[in-house]
Amino acid sequence: MALETISTARAHGGVQGVYAHASAATSTRMEFSVFVPPHEPGATLPVVWYLSGLTCTQANVTEKGEFRAACAEHGLIFVAPDTSPRGPDVADDPDGAYDFGLGAGFYLDATEPPFAPHYRMRSYIEDELPAVIAAHFPADMARQSILGHSMGGHGALTVSLRNPGRFRATSAFAPIVAPSLVPWGRKALPGYLGADETAWAEYDACALIAAGARLPEILVDQGTADGFLDIQLQPHRLAEACAAARIDLTLRMQEGYDHSYYFISSFMADHLAWHAARLKG
Amino acid sequence: MALETISTARAHGGVQGVYAHASAATSTRMEFSVFVPPHEPGATLPVVWYLSGLTCTQANVTEKGEFRAACAEHGLIFVAPDTSPRGPDVADDPDGAYDFGLGAGFYLDATEPPFAPHYRMRSYIEDELPAVIAAHFPADMARQSILGHSMGGHGALTVSLRNPGRFRATSAFAPIVAPSLVPWGRKALPGYLGADETAWAEYDACALIAAGARLPEILVDQGTADGFLDIQLQPHRLAEACAAARIDLTLRMQEGYDHSYYFISSFMADHLAWHAARLKG
Repeated sequence: MALETISTARAHGGVQGVYAHASAATSTRMEFSVFVPPHEPGATLPVVWYLSGLTCTQANVTEKGEFRAACAEHGLIFVAPDTSPRGPDVADDPDGAYDFGLGAGFYLDATEPPFAPHYRMRSYIEDELPAVIAAHFPADMARQSILGHSMGGHGALTVSLRNPGRFRATSAFAPIVAPSLVPWGRKALPGYLGADETAWAEYDACALIAAGARLPEILVDQGTADGFLDIQLQPHRLAEACAAARIDLTLRMQEGYDHSYYFISSFMADHLAWHAARLKG
Repeated sequence: MALETISTARAHGGVQGVYAHASAATSTRMEFSVFVPPHEPGATLPVVWYLSGLTCTQANVTEKGEFRAACAEHGLIFVAPDTSPRGPDVADDPDGAYDFGLGAGFYLDATEPPFAPHYRMRSYIEDELPAVIAAHFPADMARQSILGHSMGGHGALTVSLRNPGRFRATSAFAPIVAPSLVPWGRKALPGYLGADETAWAEYDACALIAAGARLPEILVDQGTADGFLDIQLQPHRLAEACAAARIDLTLRMQEGYDHSYYFISSFMADHLAWHAARLKG
């Protein structure tokens, strides 16, 4: 579990690092970023997982997410993984499209060729990377939370729903909530998992909730000027699923905000304060 | 003075825009960004000018500067110009170096061929762009302040020193303070202005102060792990000039910080609060 340090920089009193390692889950080199806030020597800190959206690497949120001030204030480690395996041996969308293949791992373990060998982001995020974080950073793994954006909002919701009790807080910016029913998912899920839709359900937040998965509460912010709102995101489906399951969903429609990091960064401090209240209780 | 809107996005309750116009000063198309915070209809707001460093466009600080939350809190318009003229007709460093030519305008009006026709960033920043901002945004031009980073710190200091009374606050991150005496300046100043060093003095903060220019106070943050500190930045020269001139300089050496936007963004909110206190008094 050797870790390569790509870069570190002092920021907001802590250290923003970018790291890489040889992943057993994906059989590729994987990069991720970690912010460790200022802390007392020997202290361990809660860990916030941030899963990014289509086309992103760890760099988008690391550079544009405006999370470090809030993480420093609340004493939170912030972990940002990549969104897919990468490398010369990794299969991509045959047309090079942005919504499948590289940068579009959908946080699942693929079963279809040629994606099955490397596209194992579920195992990577749920099992392998937490062990790396626990081994190399001052992390209190008993206090974790998770959030994400768009495809990463889908990731945050589904990872948390499948692992009840692991995360003390779960939130999302403009998440994909029902990939089985929208174009992004109806391309990616058969591509990675095959045509049998029963295999898709564990990667669909609304389907997981319908099948009995539960979280105590969920926070979602969604911009009303988001160009993907009606076709790809459809947060009303999550609202209906949570209402039926008596999950306490706070869905905030944010007037005039789009799908970009200008939106995410506007509400990042809010989300982290909400996480911190639950991580420190 | 027609303005082209390249993009706008809602952010932190306000609007982050990127704009372009045909500049009379540089005879090129110039891009800049403006953040207008939430405000009452009809209100006018103080204007903070941010001048960027070598290699940057408006985009670096716009994406990585973490200024919007503070500008929204204090009600400040934030303007980020480009760092040089650009375009197919604009001369560049003959070797394409990063520290001269494109992205390296040094906020001066060049007199040497082939740079004189377009490299007129002093006139652009001091005269033309303020008129554009006044015409198109809810700006109270009686309340302006200025800050910048590295080459843009040099720009902020020299623009402010040459225009006493225009800016209610002047600050910088890791500024070039004596370009006449360091390698970056000893390449750029003769390249743009010719070999006669007397022409350089109005573009050298320490030389301006030595010649009698005054500001009531200056705030500077400088990282101790900045790779340019000893050779290019030498803030001790500014400290000596300000001490001799009885200018109230606050020079904060920030332990372990480098020259990057991780450093800038860590102290941006601090600077903007310091500016706001002076802009609102």
